[in-house]
Amino acid sequence: MHIVVLAGGVGGARFLRGLLDAVPDAEVTAVVNTGDDVTMYGLRICPDLDTVMYTLGDGIDEERGWGQRGETWTVKEQLAAYGAEPTWFGLGDRDLATHLVRTRMLGAGHPLSEVTAFLAQRWQPGVRLLPMSDQRVETHVVVDDPATGGERTLHFQEWWVRHRAALDARRFVQVGVDDARPGPGVVEALATADAVLLAPSNPVVSIGTVLGVPGVRDALRAASGRVVGVSPIVSGAALRGMADRCLPVLGVEVSAEGVGRHYGARSTGGVLDAWLVHTGDTAAVPGVDVRSVPLLMSDPAATRALAQAALDAALPGSAR
Amino acid sequence: MHIVVLAGGVGGARFLRGLLDAVPDAEVTAVVNTGDDVTMYGLRICPDLDTVMYTLGDGIDEERGWGQRGETWTVKEQLAAYGAEPTWFGLGDRDLATHLVRTRMLGAGHPLSEVTAFLAQRWQPGVRLLPMSDQRVETHVVVDDPATGGERTLHFQEWWVRHRAALDARRFVQVGVDDARPGPGVVEALATADAVLLAPSNPVVSIGTVLGVPGVRDALRAASGRVVGVSPIVSGAALRGMADRCLPVLGVEVSAEGVGRHYGARSTGGVLDAWLVHTGDTAAVPGVDVRSVPLLMSDPAATRALAQAALDAALPGSAR
Repeated sequence: MHIVVLAGGVGGARFLRGLLDAVPDAEVTAVVNTGDDVTMYGLRICPDLDTVMYTLGDGIDEERGWGQRGETWTVKEQLAAYGAEPTWFGLGDRDLATHLVRTRMLGAGHPLSEVTAFLAQRWQPGVRLLPMSDQRVETHVVVDDPATGGERTLHFQEWWVRHRAALDARRFVQVGVDDARPGPGVVEALATADAVLLAPSNPVVSIGTVLGVPGVRDALRAASGRVVGVSPIVSGAALRGMADRCLPVLGVEVSAEGVGRHYGARSTGGVLDAWLVHTGDTAAVPGVDVRSVPLLMSDPAATRALAQAALDAALPGSAR
Repeated sequence: MHIVVLAGGVGGARFLRGLLDAVPDAEVTAVVNTGDDVTMYGLRICPDLDTVMYTLGDGIDEERGWGQRGETWTVKEQLAAYGAEPTWFGLGDRDLATHLVRTRMLGAGHPLSEVTAFLAQRWQPGVRLLPMSDQRVETHVVVDDPATGGERTLHFQEWWVRHRAALDARRFVQVGVDDARPGPGVVEALATADAVLLAPSNPVVSIGTVLGVPGVRDALRAASGRVVGVSPIVSGAALRGMADRCLPVLGVEVSAEGVGRHYGARSTGGVLDAWLVHTGDTAAVPGVDVRSVPLLMSDPAATRALAQAALDAALPGSAR
């Protein structure tokens, strides 16, 4: 059985862990958002790829949700001693080695997919880890600029990490998306997978960014397996991250129904066959099989059960 | 009083510290070798500049002689976990921040002299710290290649750090030296200084590299102040480093006299007016005022006394 998961960072990583727990023998391909990627201090940083890699490779700091367990911060402190900007980005010493290797390999001409495969040799995440694209696609955020009365543009990381998404976003811009192609293996995986799952990641700046890569949405619509999404919104609130700061920018209601309708049914030009909402939530999404199941990934058993529920929705005739 | 010191790493840094101790009110310009510079993991590393900066900025690891006190090695360990080469280079976490800032500034187009001035704002070394050149000049070492019976070329750091200079050098090559110019301020400092001192650094790959930058030797010969060298060889042995592995490559005897003659008298086309050798050593260097004084920089008082002796030789009529 081959399962493809579209994923962002923390939520996507936990969902993938639950999936591997539920079906350890399945072949799993994770197509991961790289729109959060950023160059800091000359280092190429891929937060979502690393979060998935560290989480599945048992190196994640569970409490923080990102970065490595046992992390130290010497380089960051020393950079601050030089007054080097930015000081708001959490660059750990252990993490930094990943970025150094990545940056050097990219500089030598290796595409991100090859670099990711190399890094994964160490972490053995148990999934095939694919960046959504080998081309740089960076999410920038357009906000009000009180100084001029006009607008200004920030990198997503600055908006997200430095400002905690507190600045009202006018719109998101996917810099480079027009020239991007799906990463090697992405279209093929989507075409042939027995099931495609959309992790409960941010529908705008994680899953939305993956879907925005030209060719991905078409591949999803043409997929032979069923496509099942998991709502990141529970009882009208984002489970983690700040999807509630992103959805209104697209005019999408912060609710399981709002996100489900935003993704839409494959039969009507959207991407979903089924949509999982939290027990007690309801969602009317025309043409989509909506199911209520517990969505909270509060412990390994609950996370595994959620992944199983997604699989059950994807493979209704399966003996599983 | 303005004093210019040509310096390499550890020996040069300690000599400079003694000089500042001896004449705290003097204006001191350190012209530092950059032939040891190397790019590792995409980071531009300037070992001699950093050793001088950390030493005079009270950040040096005294025991090791290079790198920072309280250094940690997390990034290096993590790079090794990825199998990233090289593993033989001592890249500390604290040190790494220096290289990140430098690499980013160089990448943004700042010349090394500006980068060095920026880094020195933090460390406050108490001297004007000038790279010998803003152009890249890297010392490479040509050694026998048993595999082919011919020769192969290593970066100086690989020869020095990885192989501990154990491979017989056929010759040294200063890559880029033909296109190099003295760094901003170097020629002017040499021209107007009251005294020019050659620190007891490696005469081949430290002082020799500085002197090899087109224009430096001429500036030294035209200097209005006297030029005093300090022998790095005591009783026929290198005080530190591996000058004894370098001098024979140039056909220079490993002795205070050998090095003194190699530098030569200004009056005969060389660079020296005076030459300090260790108590008990002798050296006949035609045209040069040779003086025997204690050269061991074994403690602050001895180091200060050595610097004072160099100044006495440079400023014979001074009331100091």
